[in-house]
Amino acid sequence: MFRFLAGLYRKYAADGDRVCAGMENPGYRSGSVDSLRHRPSDVVFEDDDDDEMVDIAGATLDFSNTDDDPPLGSADFVERGSRAGSMSGAGPGRLVDPLEDPLPGVGTYEDFNTIDWVREKSKDRDRHREIANKSRQSTVALLHSVSDAFSGWLLMLLVGLMSGALAGGIDIAAHWLTDMKEGLCLVGFWFNHEHCCWTSNETTFQERDRCPQWQSWAEIMTGTSEGALAYFVNYLMFLVWALLFALLAVTLVRAFAPYACGSGIPEIKTILSGFIIRGYLGKWTLIIKTITLVLAVSSGLSLGKEGPLVHVACCCANILCHLFTKYRKNEAKRREVLSAAAAVGVSVAFGAPIGGVLFSLEEVSYYFPLKTLWRSFFAALVAAFTLRSINPFGNSRLVLFYVEFHAPWHLVELGPFILLGIFGGLWGALFIRANIAWCRIRKSTRLGHYPVMEVLVVTALTGMLAYPNSYTRMGGAELISELFNDCSLLDSSQLCGYKQSNSTSGAGVGNGLADRPAGVGLYAALWQLALALVFKMMITVITFGMKVPSGLFIPSMAVGAIAGRLLGVGMEQLAYYNHDSAIFRGWCSPGADCITPGLYAMVGAAACLGGVTRMTVSLVVIMFELTGGLEYIVPLMAATMTSKWVADAFGREGIYEAHIRLNGYPFLEPKEEFQHSSLTADVMRPRRSDPPLAVLTQEGMTVEEVEALVESTHYSGFPVVVSQDSHRLVGFVLRRDLLISIDNARKRQEGVVGASQVVFTEHSPAPADDAPPPLRLRGIVDLSPFTVTDHTPMDITVDIFRKLGLRQCLVTHNGKLLGIITKKDILKHMAQIANRDPDSILFN
Amino acid sequence: MFRFLAGLYRKYAADGDRVCAGMENPGYRSGSVDSLRHRPSDVVFEDDDDDEMVDIAGATLDFSNTDDDPPLGSADFVERGSRAGSMSGAGPGRLVDPLEDPLPGVGTYEDFNTIDWVREKSKDRDRHREIANKSRQSTVALLHSVSDAFSGWLLMLLVGLMSGALAGGIDIAAHWLTDMKEGLCLVGFWFNHEHCCWTSNETTFQERDRCPQWQSWAEIMTGTSEGALAYFVNYLMFLVWALLFALLAVTLVRAFAPYACGSGIPEIKTILSGFIIRGYLGKWTLIIKTITLVLAVSSGLSLGKEGPLVHVACCCANILCHLFTKYRKNEAKRREVLSAAAAVGVSVAFGAPIGGVLFSLEEVSYYFPLKTLWRSFFAALVAAFTLRSINPFGNSRLVLFYVEFHAPWHLVELGPFILLGIFGGLWGALFIRANIAWCRIRKSTRLGHYPVMEVLVVTALTGMLAYPNSYTRMGGAELISELFNDCSLLDSSQLCGYKQSNSTSGAGVGNGLADRPAGVGLYAALWQLALALVFKMMITVITFGMKVPSGLFIPSMAVGAIAGRLLGVGMEQLAYYNHDSAIFRGWCSPGADCITPGLYAMVGAAACLGGVTRMTVSLVVIMFELTGGLEYIVPLMAATMTSKWVADAFGREGIYEAHIRLNGYPFLEPKEEFQHSSLTADVMRPRRSDPPLAVLTQEGMTVEEVEALVESTHYSGFPVVVSQDSHRLVGFVLRRDLLISIDNARKRQEGVVGASQVVFTEHSPAPADDAPPPLRLRGIVDLSPFTVTDHTPMDITVDIFRKLGLRQCLVTHNGKLLGIITKKDILKHMAQIANRDPDSILFN
Repeated sequence: MFRFLAGLYRKYAADGDRVCAGMENPGYRSGSVDSLRHRPSDVVFEDDDDDEMVDIAGATLDFSNTDDDPPLGSADFVERGSRAGSMSGAGPGRLVDPLEDPLPGVGTYEDFNTIDWVREKSKDRDRHREIANKSRQSTVALLHSVSDAFSGWLLMLLVGLMSGALAGGIDIAAHWLTDMKEGLCLVGFWFNHEHCCWTSNETTFQERDRCPQWQSWAEIMTGTSEGALAYFVNYLMFLVWALLFALLAVTLVRAFAPYACGSGIPEIKTILSGFIIRGYLGKWTLIIKTITLVLAVSSGLSLGKEGPLVHVACCCANILCHLFTKYRKNEAKRREVLSAAAAVGVSVAFGAPIGGVLFSLEEVSYYFPLKTLWRSFFAALVAAFTLRSINPFGNSRLVLFYVEFHAPWHLVELGPFILLGIFGGLWGALFIRANIAWCRIRKSTRLGHYPVMEVLVVTALTGMLAYPNSYTRMGGAELISELFNDCSLLDSSQLCGYKQSNSTSGAGVGNGLADRPAGVGLYAALWQLALALVFKMMITVITFGMKVPSGLFIPSMAVGAIAGRLLGVGMEQLAYYNHDSAIFRGWCSPGADCITPGLYAMVGAAACLGGVTRMTVSLVVIMFELTGGLEYIVPLMAATMTSKWVADAFGREGIYEAHIRLNGYPFLEPKEEFQHSSLTADVMRPRRSDPPLAVLTQEGMTVEEVEALVESTHYSGFPVVVSQDSHRLVGFVLRRDLLISIDNARKRQEGVVGASQVVFTEHSPAPADDAPPPLRLRGIVDLSPFTVTDHTPMDITVDIFRKLGLRQCLVTHNGKLLGIITKKDILKHMAQIANRDPDSILFN
Repeated sequence: MFRFLAGLYRKYAADGDRVCAGMENPGYRSGSVDSLRHRPSDVVFEDDDDDEMVDIAGATLDFSNTDDDPPLGSADFVERGSRAGSMSGAGPGRLVDPLEDPLPGVGTYEDFNTIDWVREKSKDRDRHREIANKSRQSTVALLHSVSDAFSGWLLMLLVGLMSGALAGGIDIAAHWLTDMKEGLCLVGFWFNHEHCCWTSNETTFQERDRCPQWQSWAEIMTGTSEGALAYFVNYLMFLVWALLFALLAVTLVRAFAPYACGSGIPEIKTILSGFIIRGYLGKWTLIIKTITLVLAVSSGLSLGKEGPLVHVACCCANILCHLFTKYRKNEAKRREVLSAAAAVGVSVAFGAPIGGVLFSLEEVSYYFPLKTLWRSFFAALVAAFTLRSINPFGNSRLVLFYVEFHAPWHLVELGPFILLGIFGGLWGALFIRANIAWCRIRKSTRLGHYPVMEVLVVTALTGMLAYPNSYTRMGGAELISELFNDCSLLDSSQLCGYKQSNSTSGAGVGNGLADRPAGVGLYAALWQLALALVFKMMITVITFGMKVPSGLFIPSMAVGAIAGRLLGVGMEQLAYYNHDSAIFRGWCSPGADCITPGLYAMVGAAACLGGVTRMTVSLVVIMFELTGGLEYIVPLMAATMTSKWVADAFGREGIYEAHIRLNGYPFLEPKEEFQHSSLTADVMRPRRSDPPLAVLTQEGMTVEEVEALVESTHYSGFPVVVSQDSHRLVGFVLRRDLLISIDNARKRQEGVVGASQVVFTEHSPAPADDAPPPLRLRGIVDLSPFTVTDHTPMDITVDIFRKLGLRQCLVTHNGKLLGIITKKDILKHMAQIANRDPDSILFN
């Protein structure tokens, strides 16, 4: 037992590394697989490979009729009918025979394996039926049934509350630590800049940011806030704090929770598609990710907290699932909750509950039943309102970037909007390529061995380059907020540095604002923005994928928002100086507020985010929730559509799919159609050069023979056939269930020895007088394995795998078992078609 | 040929009646089926029943090995591999052999049959592959490939434009005709009331509705607008016009397009689930539905135009599909477009594009791939903006009921909101029961034979009762609009008849409005509203289901809005008179605007609509789009959730599902889990008392034998087995394809006579010298039929049918063919479990 635990730990730690920052290299991998192969006794717990099931016996098949109960028209059929109740869960989830209760371990999964959705759902329906039947018998059972029905809602409520509270905490802490890099509140170090000045009486409305209680590090250390020395001290302190935060973050991740790094969305997508990664959504991951997310954001790196918030919400959901048997014991039901949690994550990240639900539906989830839609929406709302009542931004706003535009847009403006879409698409495609190339370098060179050093170097670089430019010095969310903002007269931002025209004093507020030639302040801001754009584009490529929690939403949006604002100001000045030209005449008369640079920033942000993630509806809806006006949906839609088309032309994968592929997860993309014209026969195992398919016969094999067969192979399941000659399929039995049952029978059932017959039929043949009692294992056989014929086109087979969530499927030809096809076979085949290395699919 | 056409027409007309207003009665039905059975020669075109496939030969099965090619390790396998390209579409969609081109008719469907989603999707992928392959060869082909890729978007654009334009036209025409019932514009009869007064110079802002150009019928006829006579004349004219409109509507429907009646949503749901109803979305239905919808709405009946607008949009989509081969020829692809059209319909009905998409996703669609989500959204937006540029309401608003609330709601108010939810749920459940009961009466008694009379009587009743009460006299949408509206000082509505408190003049606008005890006007309005509530609740039950286009959204919302407004005003007065009590103290001080009766109306409307249709997310999102503030989502959500729970406690079906069941459509509800614990063996055919399963053997049968087998049965497909003895499954062939192919071969292929062998194998055996040439039909065999084992629990089988969209599935036991299970078998089984008549499932 100790050896098993130690092995698991070793495996966990190693795989953690691999999953997280891509430590996987050919040496590691082949070592891992080889070690598996050479330790057949350990194989019960480490059957990672069930994919190489192989070859039936050849051409000399002989069909005989003896081993076959007449299926219809006999008493047997009636009995089977009446036993329907107890047989309904005839899959391996139930042990009807020889034991009444399921053995511990039967019907559960190993780490890094794929779940069987059909089996899980069937299990849940059995459970539900049982509760419904019992509820008719007593009041207690009825109450139990009602509480069971509402447990889903209760769970959603708890997930919403917990995620909302955590998000609020993260916001507050990150705000505080970010300000800490610049100075300290003398009243109490736990106040952030804004809060510190709120408490002060000397703060005026005009100079909200200045108050004596808040002192920059230079003031505290040198006593002055002016001059080169003060600047240098501030610069240095900024760097020191950033490095400290980054060091702390990466150390915590390395030491306690290797899974806490990255954005988490690729892994969550994979988990939701039915994969098992133990500990990825555990409590350590939750704690460490929450803390290190705050540190990483505060360190000033070019990353956001939106992706990691989805991971945090999923951790909450997974942990809370343990409170309810219904969800704890069923992998499929738990994934429904996780889908909802993904919606919660986006909902608290942007304050956009509807957008969050659509994000989960469109981007993250694999199976999204309608019931989940409604519950996700509920949870997302609860989380959003929890966050609002915590009020981390201090403005009672639900949304991250509140914007209010007043001017309508004109049809001519669709031109620049589409330009922004093209920019977003190009940037998205370029970013994905560059980032994946960089991650490959990290994997294949020695760089990957020094993750702490990497983080520190990138942080230092970011800090040094970012500090001098005020637009890169501020946090990503703050920057976007400022870029989205439309200038009002009172705005002191440099971006609103328009020349005050002479007519202002006379013409009143509305016109004074509208008539705006760019001033010196604005030109300076534009230069700074242009530099910030180049910087952000570069630094984000090497930041995403480091061993700290890092989201992509904010950096991508920042790039787009800068580009959009630049274009917007350009358009505005163009319109100002050419308001009589053919294009602008009519709708852009002098004095009218005709172009809103903030809207351009918003459209640009949407375009870039769309290019990187390939989100569509959810992106537009999130943006719509930010502005609240249907008015601006058309520009957003035009830019997002263009961006997606342009980016798709360079490669159909979004960043998350690219990372899934990079890490070799077994993810069957639900969006992409299978285009090749292969047949199932071309993809299934055994191939022609492979050894024959390992099968069990429904009777006639002894315990020893079965054990020998199991130990000589490493497949995770075996088809059961009528006889070796006929190869007619009876069912499918999982290796894990088989070994546990035999093991258990040897220990508990009297007389079961190596020479005992293993019987998978319903009625065991009369044993000879001197033979040991047979071991009856029909209960663990899945009597309804999925089958396709060898002539089935692969596109249909892939569809079946996707829609039903299968793990493996048996292949028949004219009623005889021919082979087996697993999810991994399909993924390898698809990799081969796309001229990629089929061995890049690591897991099963 | 003429006989065939005449038969089709007869069938179409009769079924049209049946589909529409539920003319179905046992006599008609059994007659129809009997006539089918007794006309075996017609059966090619009328194989409605494929469900009673029956019984394998019994217990004396003998397996032999001779008839079996060795599947692996031979040259045959290599050849099959290399032929993969040409064999990929090995389903019946392709005729590889004996003819190069598919025969006309092969691979298409009959009216009132279920499509095979897997086959359709596979066909589309083949087509796509072909285009992609060709595009590498020439520039023209490349252009063709690009245009093919964008044809989906172009189609969406056209659907959006056309539906938006039609919706705008319907709005304008209905507005005009509705006003026509009350009076006439003297400047031009084509102006409606509002428009008429706009053109007048004498209109003042206070009295927008009064102008000398617009005269009531009394003024025109008697010269006076006051007094009993004038009232009587107006009353009479109101009735006459209403009866005229109703008569016209029902006559047009009866004469030209029987499918144009009802809301259309139940049928569209069924069609989207994969059923074929020819003509239901045809051009005649479109034209007649558009015209009669205007007439029905104008006649003042208690019905709305929202549901029918979905039908109209789907008709547009279906007709526009004919422009593109990709969609014209593929039933699955066309259904994707129809899903999007459903979104368009709701989008133009409410001006809520996001809500429309979610409505389509949640309520209407069966298969909703993500690509469709994005395209639906695009189409919905295009339609909404087309509608807005037509501007039928004259206020540049996109939404049907524009509301703007300013006061926040308080937590205490959740109590009344939940009360409204309970009311909505109760009303929804009650309405469904009452309406279904009434429809059953209509079906089973002589009432159903006089649809015109029924419509006239109901119209007269509605008109007579509605006219005296101003809240029932106005149209449904107008009423809801008024109820949602929050009172401002300028409002002249009776609902805003508050006593002007003394402080008004001094305290300014905000406070004067807030401090409001109910006045006489308000009390009168409340009484009228209470009467209107009772009236609407009664009349809607008998209106929905008549032979005119009729939607349910507006009437349901009206009921809820009235109830909500009543409760809202009640709460307001309670708060006004008890503002010092424990409940209201703190948040409802005197002079503060603490309770918004309009919000209560809105919540009530959502609750009632939710109770009737069981919509959830889409309903909340539609309402959210009306108000535009996330603020009010929580009240809406609370009410909708309560309403759904309460209504579900009385019966899980929404009104649309109830009507689907009433009409006996083969609709497999995707939302409800299959709860019973049966096995597939219990549900499949043949049952024990049935004749054996009719099968074809892959070789050895002559053309005559095949024809005899086909003519002696009425199944729509036959399994092909290796031999009668072994019963090992080779494939499945459709009756229609088989008959067409044999017919064609007899005509075109030389030497094929009755004694020719029919060969389904790849290599035909060497024929005897004197034998006629064999008829090779492997091309029409589906070599990848879906199979399940007899032990498969029914819940899994149902899941497979739902998720893959199957029409039938073969059942095997230990590799031998045992029986067949069709969608209809499943539905009959489910009806049986629910203690309903299994023969209520009419179609297949």
